[in-house]
Amino acid sequence: MSEDTKAAKDAEKMEKIVSLCKRRGFIFQSAEIYGGLNGCWDYGPLGVELKRNLKDYWWRKNVRERDDVVGLDGSILTHQEALKSSGHVGGFSDPMVDCRTCKSRFRADQVCESKCPEKPSKNPEENGCDLTEPRDFNLMFETKMGASSDDGSIAYLRPETAQSIFVQFKNVCDQTGERVKMPFGIAQIGKAFRNEINPRNFTFRSREFEQMEIEYFCRAEDGLELTDYWLEERLKFYESIGIPREKLHVLDVPDGERGHYSSKTYDIEYEFPFGIQELEGVAYRTDYDLKAHSEGVGKPQEYVDQAAGEKFIPHVVEPSAGCDRTILALICEAYEEEVITNDKGKQETRVVMRFDPKMAPIKCAIFPLLKNKPELVAKSKEVLDLLRPFMNVTYDETGAVGRRYRRGDEAGTPFSVTVDFDTIGENGPENEGTVTLRERDSMEQIRIPITDLVAHLLPLIQ
Amino acid sequence: MSEDTKAAKDAEKMEKIVSLCKRRGFIFQSAEIYGGLNGCWDYGPLGVELKRNLKDYWWRKNVRERDDVVGLDGSILTHQEALKSSGHVGGFSDPMVDCRTCKSRFRADQVCESKCPEKPSKNPEENGCDLTEPRDFNLMFETKMGASSDDGSIAYLRPETAQSIFVQFKNVCDQTGERVKMPFGIAQIGKAFRNEINPRNFTFRSREFEQMEIEYFCRAEDGLELTDYWLEERLKFYESIGIPREKLHVLDVPDGERGHYSSKTYDIEYEFPFGIQELEGVAYRTDYDLKAHSEGVGKPQEYVDQAAGEKFIPHVVEPSAGCDRTILALICEAYEEEVITNDKGKQETRVVMRFDPKMAPIKCAIFPLLKNKPELVAKSKEVLDLLRPFMNVTYDETGAVGRRYRRGDEAGTPFSVTVDFDTIGENGPENEGTVTLRERDSMEQIRIPITDLVAHLLPLIQ
Repeated sequence: MSEDTKAAKDAEKMEKIVSLCKRRGFIFQSAEIYGGLNGCWDYGPLGVELKRNLKDYWWRKNVRERDDVVGLDGSILTHQEALKSSGHVGGFSDPMVDCRTCKSRFRADQVCESKCPEKPSKNPEENGCDLTEPRDFNLMFETKMGASSDDGSIAYLRPETAQSIFVQFKNVCDQTGERVKMPFGIAQIGKAFRNEINPRNFTFRSREFEQMEIEYFCRAEDGLELTDYWLEERLKFYESIGIPREKLHVLDVPDGERGHYSSKTYDIEYEFPFGIQELEGVAYRTDYDLKAHSEGVGKPQEYVDQAAGEKFIPHVVEPSAGCDRTILALICEAYEEEVITNDKGKQETRVVMRFDPKMAPIKCAIFPLLKNKPELVAKSKEVLDLLRPFMNVTYDETGAVGRRYRRGDEAGTPFSVTVDFDTIGENGPENEGTVTLRERDSMEQIRIPITDLVAHLLPLIQ
Repeated sequence: MSEDTKAAKDAEKMEKIVSLCKRRGFIFQSAEIYGGLNGCWDYGPLGVELKRNLKDYWWRKNVRERDDVVGLDGSILTHQEALKSSGHVGGFSDPMVDCRTCKSRFRADQVCESKCPEKPSKNPEENGCDLTEPRDFNLMFETKMGASSDDGSIAYLRPETAQSIFVQFKNVCDQTGERVKMPFGIAQIGKAFRNEINPRNFTFRSREFEQMEIEYFCRAEDGLELTDYWLEERLKFYESIGIPREKLHVLDVPDGERGHYSSKTYDIEYEFPFGIQELEGVAYRTDYDLKAHSEGVGKPQEYVDQAAGEKFIPHVVEPSAGCDRTILALICEAYEEEVITNDKGKQETRVVMRFDPKMAPIKCAIFPLLKNKPELVAKSKEVLDLLRPFMNVTYDETGAVGRRYRRGDEAGTPFSVTVDFDTIGENGPENEGTVTLRERDSMEQIRIPITDLVAHLLPLIQ
């Protein structure tokens, strides 16, 4: 396949994914009926379950199942002094130019590609725009808090969840508890906001996004080794949720391209249809942040080792994952079109979302063979109630069973159960109380007693 | 007890609760080291687990275990046109007065109680402030989005999660799926923001808060009956998480005090130490919102009943719970001081958080009797690893076992396991492989084989 052909196919695939996400209720554009809010997305009924599964699994693996990590959930509205200390108020910006004629603003390094909203077909250098010199444009969303209207009331939407961890470091250390002994981590899942000039690639670069971050505090001498440790941990995590190792790339970010606070950073990248792009950064941030806040508040943000009689400002390693990006990677990875031979012997294309079963929004769909046969419907509802305490299930009675299978395939539902005349004993006692269980990927069907369903399915969806 | 004495005791109790919340890592003031961000709070290691347990349980009961409710997760940043249609841009405001001298702003109806920041000890009417006429001050947080600086770029932080449900109503109905047949609900858990002039009562009235909302769509003729149905459902929910029915009050909000969109509203209130205050509103919003958005976008936001060949704008019943308020109610309800006789026969006060076990942040704490005995420590870690796949556990080896019990009581941990010399067979084979299991509320201790622990505890924590 030539590079051009591949690019066209990738673009086409991405279009199909975006379309499926809307059609099946994974992801909608925010405020679509009002023309959309650029860079913001809403998760629909299937998307919200997928996202919950990812976040719950991340939390379980990184907090609850570890002795050395505790959680935090900080506010989104952030004190301006905290973001002055961290360097975001002064330094988190892109250079922009304004047009004195049309009042539009453009990124200085992209002015040639930009469209002027006044004269949309032309680029600003050609259409007589009168541009200012480049000025820094801060990427943080600013708002006013409280009733007063002076500068003291400025607050920001946090540009990263990390800073609330640093700001609460002392409180977490000082709480009475046994779990915070160096090295230890503080983890957080939550939203962050950046006023990106050009949101793009579906949910990949958006203005409102969710992060899954750990700040792992350690002694200076352990920083580099722990950076390597966390890189491996995170790669294993992605593999465990269904992203194969060979689609992940590790970039050892070279000097000069890392954040100013970092002396070592790995980017974990994934082969999206629109290119190889970052999923997560594993950054050794040294003691930059805690030192900055120590200066900001005039008090050392230290760790006290009572056993050793020692106080010090720890270093920190930060594995910082994009939750929405990981969801997008799961969706892109799961999407497949497959040519199959249907019941009538004809070739057809099925779209199947091959989610890892533990990530799949719905684990099992229950179908009565016919919806106008009350015994089949009643027995199906019984099966539904039997499975529901153990997994997310759905009931579907509309259309031919083959069409219901296709709907389940598109939703990524790994199993479906059909309740038929055998089940209710109409074809004799032999198969009474058994159902057809169909697996999404192989499309294989087995006959299984209803009483065995939970025990059979549970190990397959965890 | 006289009313004054009760008020003093309640205030003292609330102070103790706030202090425990900080000391034990339930809730910290946001940006405390920078002087705090008024009306914003961070959840610490125990608080974040408590909140996750509440949200997960709410989602399970209201979405996953119901056939008629699907989920949504909308963006916080909200299109200004959507909030114009809903009436928030024009009408979501308090009347305020500005002072021309000191530039402060006060709520018009509270100006006598307000303090002037220039002369903090005096009230503005007395200190020569030159006040403007009252003007409406919108309670929404406003921000600018995108690179352009004109009015088109205003966006708001959503003042309620409800509007993103209404705005996505058509997309949810149009998705291919089987679960949205009238009546049906769309549920959402997420943050909302209101620029409250006077945040107060700890986390109760804050500027950033989390809601757990259902918009339950129905035919007009079913609205009132479903409002009563949801009131009962919600009362049962609060009882199921440990808030007794007798501490809950239902207020049938009278005409003239309901939202303008509502023809029937129940407030569910709880007896907080600072007064009887609202936890949740169950409001029959009629077809107000979907009609408003239909007008706003110029297209009817209808439900299509294909079987009946009918189209109509549905009515909606909204059970809207405050997640942070429910957490605060759980904390207030759990808090108890109890005078007990300790091991040495002396009376002492223990503070115990009597959380319902399924809400408790940590389900079981594991203690080695002595931390300097490697066999006890190793066996304790074995028990920890055995329980961990089934529940959130912690390990505590510091101090006397009695002190560790007290620490667990304050965290609300319902069970603790002590690994002692019997466990490791040092006192003969009789009790080898057994541990002491202590229950938080009764403080009763039983001897139980390690191999029975999971089966014994699982039904007690769910």
